[in-house]
Order: sequence, then structure tokens, then C-alpha cells
Amino acid sequence: MTNKETILEKIKSNSEIIGIIGLGYVGLPLAVNFAEAGIKVIGFEKSREKADMINHGTNYIGDIRDAVLREVVVDKLKLEATTDASRMKECDALIIAVPTPLDKFRKPDMSYIESACLDIGQNMKAGTFISLESTTYPTTTEDFMLPIIERESGLKQGTDFWLAYSPERVDPGNKQFHTRNTPKVLGAMSEDGVEIGEALYLKAIDSIYKVSSPRVSEMVKILENTYRLINISLINELALLAGKMDINIWEVIEAARTKPFGFQAFYPGPGIGGHCIPLDPFYLEHIAKKYDFELSMIHAAGHINMRMPQYMYIKIATALNSQKKAVKGSNILFLGVAYKPNINDERESPALEIMDITTHKGGMVTYHDPYIAKVKTNEGRLFNSVELTEKALKEADCVVLTTNHKDFDVEFIQERARLVVDLRNMVKEKGENIFKL
Amino acid sequence: MTNKETILEKIKSNSEIIGIIGLGYVGLPLAVNFAEAGIKVIGFEKSREKADMINHGTNYIGDIRDAVLREVVVDKLKLEATTDASRMKECDALIIAVPTPLDKFRKPDMSYIESACLDIGQNMKAGTFISLESTTYPTTTEDFMLPIIERESGLKQGTDFWLAYSPERVDPGNKQFHTRNTPKVLGAMSEDGVEIGEALYLKAIDSIYKVSSPRVSEMVKILENTYRLINISLINELALLAGKMDINIWEVIEAARTKPFGFQAFYPGPGIGGHCIPLDPFYLEHIAKKYDFELSMIHAAGHINMRMPQYMYIKIATALNSQKKAVKGSNILFLGVAYKPNINDERESPALEIMDITTHKGGMVTYHDPYIAKVKTNEGRLFNSVELTEKALKEADCVVLTTNHKDFDVEFIQERARLVVDLRNMVKEKGENIFKL
Repeated sequence: MTNKETILEKIKSNSEIIGIIGLGYVGLPLAVNFAEAGIKVIGFEKSREKADMINHGTNYIGDIRDAVLREVVVDKLKLEATTDASRMKECDALIIAVPTPLDKFRKPDMSYIESACLDIGQNMKAGTFISLESTTYPTTTEDFMLPIIERESGLKQGTDFWLAYSPERVDPGNKQFHTRNTPKVLGAMSEDGVEIGEALYLKAIDSIYKVSSPRVSEMVKILENTYRLINISLINELALLAGKMDINIWEVIEAARTKPFGFQAFYPGPGIGGHCIPLDPFYLEHIAKKYDFELSMIHAAGHINMRMPQYMYIKIATALNSQKKAVKGSNILFLGVAYKPNINDERESPALEIMDITTHKGGMVTYHDPYIAKVKTNEGRLFNSVELTEKALKEADCVVLTTNHKDFDVEFIQERARLVVDLRNMVKEKGENIFKL
Repeated sequence: MTNKETILEKIKSNSEIIGIIGLGYVGLPLAVNFAEAGIKVIGFEKSREKADMINHGTNYIGDIRDAVLREVVVDKLKLEATTDASRMKECDALIIAVPTPLDKFRKPDMSYIESACLDIGQNMKAGTFISLESTTYPTTTEDFMLPIIERESGLKQGTDFWLAYSPERVDPGNKQFHTRNTPKVLGAMSEDGVEIGEALYLKAIDSIYKVSSPRVSEMVKILENTYRLINISLINELALLAGKMDINIWEVIEAARTKPFGFQAFYPGPGIGGHCIPLDPFYLEHIAKKYDFELSMIHAAGHINMRMPQYMYIKIATALNSQKKAVKGSNILFLGVAYKPNINDERESPALEIMDITTHKGGMVTYHDPYIAKVKTNEGRLFNSVELTEKALKEADCVVLTTNHKDFDVEFIQERARLVVDLRNMVKEKGENIFKL
């Protein structure tokens, strides 16, 4: 049997072993989906702590139900985690879901992908299907990954292994669309790779959409996130102008939404957070430089978003000023540090930056977030979530609504707070002590 | 009876007379809708030719059925057109739907609105409801129109007349959503104005969405069009980069569309045309200057779109070059000059600018458009549509697909053309003689 026949046969008989590299927001739900489908999954994790948690059936991802994880790990023995890359040789397929951050200079940090490729090249067996899910710049799979894997393994793409790119589309906290029912785009370096990848992914995901190359699927993911970045940036910019023109931007958006065609609503906020939208478009900006191309829309959007926390600080200072108070020495209570509602993720959250700026200017900063017990800001300050008591609200010179968690009782808050800066349109009434973005 | 009671009573008994100022793409369908509802409508048109056409029941707007216009004019005598502004005193309501172009320096040309306000102020009777539908910058209704009308009429807003802004949302050629079934946003300068405006508009439009002020409704329209400008600009910019990276942007968009949340597809093209999207956002840019505010997203978008025709010319030159031909002396046939498919409107169409550039560089330019028999380009060149014959296709050194009219038989064209530059993703096959945006 050829390598291709072997892997397709294994997939058909449900006897393939799938390795998933990186057990985070993307990798773990995917691993659980495969394991639930009865397939043996080995999770590769650099963090010993996370690997141990998985192996004890302990969940740390909001979108996975604890009982489901326990079942596939403890009862069915379908999922195990390891820090040992040499076990990649047991796998028929390797799916990479590692982080792709930007460094301090907004350059792509390819070290996680590079490390995964080195591990794969040094450990995999012939006949392995490899798929990258991490968001990255177009050409990564073909121009960055392939040379490393071929060099380290001595094997050839197309016969000895197959390389594909299939972007994750996980939207944390989305109750309607999750890993299984969100269609998955798949582009591989050869026809066989597409065929194998589709057969494999269909066990964990309902629908696969095939494209002609990895670079097309890389661009798909970038387009999706850039679309969001651009539109959030636009509405943030318009919100700032509307503020100056005495126009309620939230009312404008609600009215625009009544247009039954050609419009999708985005909402302003203190800045863009999370792991995808603030970062991914800059991957494209990075590769565009190689082609002597400037992406002016992304550039403008990045500019707006970088400045939003600073503008939000000015809003806080302006609100305090209206009550004859300075930021310096005032008690400022931030409600919510998560970058979006009802999740426990504060990565890239603008709240952290506003807290840094406010502290820097002499404000006495505290925060409460029902989902996040402690945080470390960008500048390294450590904060513990305080209790959201009547006393805490009354003692604050200013309460800043930074995340629209459904848990927040807005009426309770606004009746007790002396001053509210509402960055999420949570307070419906108007008042002299209410300042809105 | 108060003025308010009088007009509401007339509306109730269907005996009000509505004046519509400007019988173009927006005004005429609205006039017909009111007339169909049995209300007497007087259309005010500066063009004697258009007024005469209406009065003979002759239609010149694609979105209106000829028979319907003839019926309300000739059979029911509900709609008449006039060039005589003094007849505005017969009207209980005056709706303004005049053009709001930009001048050569992209500054708003307010002369049409100003002229309408002068006519209204000098002719209206007390107790008139006035609504502007033309797209314009926020604050126009309150800060630009109101002073003119009050000065010329000696009447007071709120008691003697009511001033409102209710943006048109007409999408020419849209078969699903037209004037009647597209919800209409309405903001007036006083509560009474909202009440009267809603009662009036509900006769021609199914659903009215009320907002708190004219400036909010002005901003709604700008947001809707800016959203489109920004997204078309983004995809145009990404299309140019994708071209350099050997990525088919059309394939990318089709794949991204499979994402069931958080994405809306826009398509690249030779530039943005029509009367709304290329112009309206610059109205906002204009007023933003008054508030010392720079709109960087709109600025970047405008920049991209202004350059698109130039890039499209380079594409044509590159395609000809591949066949060892120069632009100078080559026969170049453009298919489609309308700014979007299946309509007869070439306003702001990028095709015209590309034709100018190509002519300027020595190309022998012809065009065919089944909807538009003759055009005048921006630089004043006159062209007549040629017949789309086998001979014309074969004699052209290059055929450029500029508008995706459904009438074009793409297979017929591509089989006969020596070289095709496809700016609308109409040709599905690949080939050495096919160049795509």
C-alpha cells in the first residue's frame, strides 16, 4: 500500500491517531471533538501544568463542557496530553494550533510555529498528514514551514507527507457556532493532501470547504479578521467624531441596522482585544512589505485602535473634571477586564492598558471581573479582582464600565456610583453623572 | 385648529398635497408611491424636459414600471410635474430629493439644497412639513437649511412649519428592496415634526424608524454608505496585494463567505461608482474639519479608490505587453460603462476614467453597453456604444470587462477575443490570454 492508501484506510476504519500540537482555545475543543468521534488523540503541550490538567480530566477552556472532557479522557481513554514530542511518531496526522503573537514591534513571532515544525520534522513518521490552524501571513505554510519540515525529516511533501493549512474559526463564547458546526476552509499543497485532510476533518467538523492552495486559505482567515478590524476601527473613529458633534453613535447604529441589505452593525468600544483581531491583520502587513506594498486601510485601523485606550483615559479624566476632581488621587473602579463579554480571556484587552495609563497618572485603580480573579497589565502591574459591593461602588470617585458582562446589574451600579463612564452603552438613562463613549 | 391639527387632519383624510422637489432616482419613485396611495403629488423639477416627460406619462427611471407611472399621471391625475416653484404654496408637505454632488475639490456642493430652501422659504404656506432626503453631512438640516428657510419665509420651525431629515435608501436595480419595503429613518427638529412626518411617510413606506434628531438620521445615512466605501476599499486593496502574491482574491472571498457569523462579502472592482458611495463619506470628512477631526479610515479609502482606475490601466497595459503590444495604437474595447450591473447609470463610473486614461496613452478606445447608448467621459470625450459583434471582438487587441451586466455572454466573448482583461470575475476559466483583477 502507498502512504496515501494507508492513511485513508486508517481514517476509514477509525484507527488513525491524531496529534494536536497546542491545547489552547483552538486545539483543545478540536481534540475533544475528534476524541468524541471515537478517535485516539494525543495532545502535545509545552506546559506541563496544562498537560497534567488534561490527563486528570480537568478542563480550563470555557467553550468545553467539563463532563465531556472528563468522559473522553477518563472514561473512554481517547484523549491524553503529553509534553514529549517524540510521541509524534505514533501519529498519522498532526494538527498545529499554537499561538502566533506579534512581538513588541508588531512583527510576527514565528517561534511557536518554528518550534512545532522542528518537533514534527525530527519526530514524525512517513505518511503523516500535517495541518496548520494558527493564523499567520499568506505563504507561511509553503515558504516557512515546508523547508523546515523537509530539512529536518528528510521526507518529501506530496509522497512522504502532506502539508495543509486550515484556519481555525473559533469564536470564544459563541453559543450558536462552535468548532463542529462552523464550516472549515482547507487548502493543501497537493491534491492528495486535500483528499486526506477532508476525510480526517469531517470526523470533527460538519462541513469542509476546499480551496486551491494553502496561501488561499491563509488569506481567507486574514480577510475575515481584517474585515472585523477595519469595521470596528471605523465605528470607533466615527464614535469619537460623533461625541464631538453631540450625536449618540449607539442610536445611529441601531437605526442603520434597520437597513435590510448591505449593512452589518459593529459597535464602538475602548479598543480591540483578544488574540485574533488586533494581531492578525498585521501579519498581512508584514508580508506585504516583501511585495513592496503598503496596506493603508490596515495601517489606519491600527493607528485608531492603538490610540483608543488613550482616548478612553481622556474620557475618564473629563468625567472626573466635571465633578471638580483630578485623576491623581481619585479612586477609579473598572468593571470588566475581559476583552469581550462573558468570557475569562483578558488577552490584549484594552481595559488593561487604560488601567495602566490611569495608574500612571496617579489614579487609585481597582477592578472587578466575575470571570477573571487576577490580572497582570501590559506594564507588569498585578491586580486582584475586588468584590462588587455597595461600599466599593459608593467609595469610587469614578466607575468605568469596560466590559459588558451580562452579570453586571447596571441599575444597581448606576444608582450607587457617584460617576459612571460607560464605554459599552450599558446605561440606558441619561444623567449628569453618566459619560458615554 | 392649530397648524398641526390641520395637517394631521388632512393626512388622515388623504386630502394633503405633497410636493416633491427633484424627480430623480429618489424623488420619482417616492412620488409614484404617494400617488399610488391616492395622494395628490406635485413634482418640482428644474429640468423642463423631465417635467414634460412626467406630464406625458413617460418614465425615465429603471426602478419604476412605465405602466404604473402612466396610470398615476394620465388615468388617475394624481401626479403632475412643474418647473414653477410658486406652486409650493399649494403643498402641505415638501420633500427634497435633489442631488448633493461634490465639486472638483471634493467639497460638498450645497447649491441644490440651498436653491430648494430658497424656493421653499419664498413660496411655502404656513403649516408645511419639510423633509430633506438627500445625503449630506450631519448638521445640514439644523445649521444650513433652517436659517435659510426661516429667513426667507419669516416663519418659525416648530409652530409654523416642521423640518425633518429622512434619508433615502434607494438601491437602484435591487429587485427585493425598493422604496416601499425599505424601512425609513426619520429625525425631526421637534416632536410634532416626527409625529407629522411618520403619519405622512407611512402612506408610501411600510415602516418608519424614528430617531431623536435630524443630525442622528443624517449620520445614519453616512454610516451606511461609509461602511460600504470602507469595505469595498479594503477588498480592492487586498485584491491588488493578492495579485502580487499569486492569490486569487475571488476564491478567497467565496471561501470567507462560508463563515456563518461576523463576515459580509464585498467584491473588488475597477473603482467605486454611482452617486452615493464614492461621494457621501467625503461629506462627513468635510464637516469633521470643523471639529478639528481627521477621519483616517475614510481618507485611506478615498485614496485607494482614486487610484483604482490607474491600476486598472496598468493591468490593461500589462496584458497587452504579454502579447508584445503597446497601448498606443491598440484597439481596446470596453464592455460596460454602468457603475453596477443591469442599470443605465454611469455616474462616477470608473470605466469612464479608465477609458480616459487609455485614450490619453494612445489607445483606440471603443465601448459597448446594452443599457447606455452614449457617454461623456470626465475629460469630456464623447463615445457612442458600438455593437457587440463577432467582428468587433475579433478586431480588438484587448477586450476589457468593466461591468458585469447579465446580458454579456462571457463564453461568446472570450472565445472570440484575442485578449481579455476581466475586472469583474466573469470569466471562470484560466488562460494565457485572460488577465483578472
